[in-house]
Amino acid sequence: MSTADQPATGATLNDLDSPFPTARQRSRERAAKREAVLRAAVRMFNERGFHQTSLDDVAARLGVSKPTIYHYLGNKDQVLLECVKLGLTQLLDAAAASRALPGTGADRLVTFLTRYAEINMDDFGRCVVRTRDEALEPDSRTKFRALKRQIDDQLRGLIADGMADGSLAPGDPKLLGFALAGALNWIGHWHEPTGALAPNDIARQLVTTLARGFLPR
Amino acid sequence: MSTADQPATGATLNDLDSPFPTARQRSRERAAKREAVLRAAVRMFNERGFHQTSLDDVAARLGVSKPTIYHYLGNKDQVLLECVKLGLTQLLDAAAASRALPGTGADRLVTFLTRYAEINMDDFGRCVVRTRDEALEPDSRTKFRALKRQIDDQLRGLIADGMADGSLAPGDPKLLGFALAGALNWIGHWHEPTGALAPNDIARQLVTTLARGFLPR
Repeated sequence: MSTADQPATGATLNDLDSPFPTARQRSRERAAKREAVLRAAVRMFNERGFHQTSLDDVAARLGVSKPTIYHYLGNKDQVLLECVKLGLTQLLDAAAASRALPGTGADRLVTFLTRYAEINMDDFGRCVVRTRDEALEPDSRTKFRALKRQIDDQLRGLIADGMADGSLAPGDPKLLGFALAGALNWIGHWHEPTGALAPNDIARQLVTTLARGFLPR
Repeated sequence: MSTADQPATGATLNDLDSPFPTARQRSRERAAKREAVLRAAVRMFNERGFHQTSLDDVAARLGVSKPTIYHYLGNKDQVLLECVKLGLTQLLDAAAASRALPGTGADRLVTFLTRYAEINMDDFGRCVVRTRDEALEPDSRTKFRALKRQIDDQLRGLIADGMADGSLAPGDPKLLGFALAGALNWIGHWHEPTGALAPNDIARQLVTTLARGFLPR
């Protein structure tokens, strides 16, 4: 379906004059359709489990045919890889944004962890946590693992910075990284999107607990 | 094979006189064989993954036939259920032992968490963490979930006691429970049994980090 007959903000005269979509419009449409497929797929993977969801199910929910999904994304393995890549890209973006902030290493770590927790309560982050390496085909698995390793490295880098500037308690950055990642990845398993607390409240409370410990200060 | 010809400590005259095993010996032998099957199975499940391991593989490693495994434990679902039950029983025993200790609620929680971390580095605890509910048949899954819920309840109870006696920082016991369980369950995914640090050192360091937080005190 063309959107040429729906003038959008910033539409050029050209957009309005021709009934044929421009290259830019086609590319935007393609991206929108791709995203709709990914959003439908990731929700079904998260709700039912990857193995219990077929691309036919995803196609049915979107009211399209399975070949349409193949056209936009490829096979089920490629759809899953795209879903986890979106989640991991959000985490990497959050790490880059946190590292660029002023303040102490502890401030930057807290910012990153809070965003990390929030992403794990969102569709694509939840999918990252719920996807086992073995669910992906070997090539995709290699990519998935490499991206996860980048997140681990970013987290350890933030921790090492904070230990170096004295804003974090001294310790083993690797062990602290595992403790924090574990506490926050677990969210993707227990958190109910329909729960009473808002994701940013949960994220803030969890990160405060990890920062201050469970013993009184 | 009978052990009647190998006089054991505490063997009665009866044990030594007869070439036929007594009921007690048969029961001990049966338990030992059952445990050998479970130990071989859990290690293969942990190394290769449950779906990638067949009972034929387990039988081959033990040098027995698959019907022998069926005889002692039942089908693959039942073998997995027994493995996770052993891990969960260790955790429940640790909770009961911790709750019976004197001292503050915080002391009891630290004792339990340290043991919890150690169990997750051991074969059966690792299997609990690595087993997804969906890997089990519906009946076994119900039992698995019920046992895990008991552990969650025990952990929350220990936390609530510590918050009540003021030895823990005030907060939401449920959220703290999720944070702690997540940090410690994650061990079952990253810990390498051949790693440099001893399990009890890793357990102690992780629990200290969770108790004191990552900000300096």
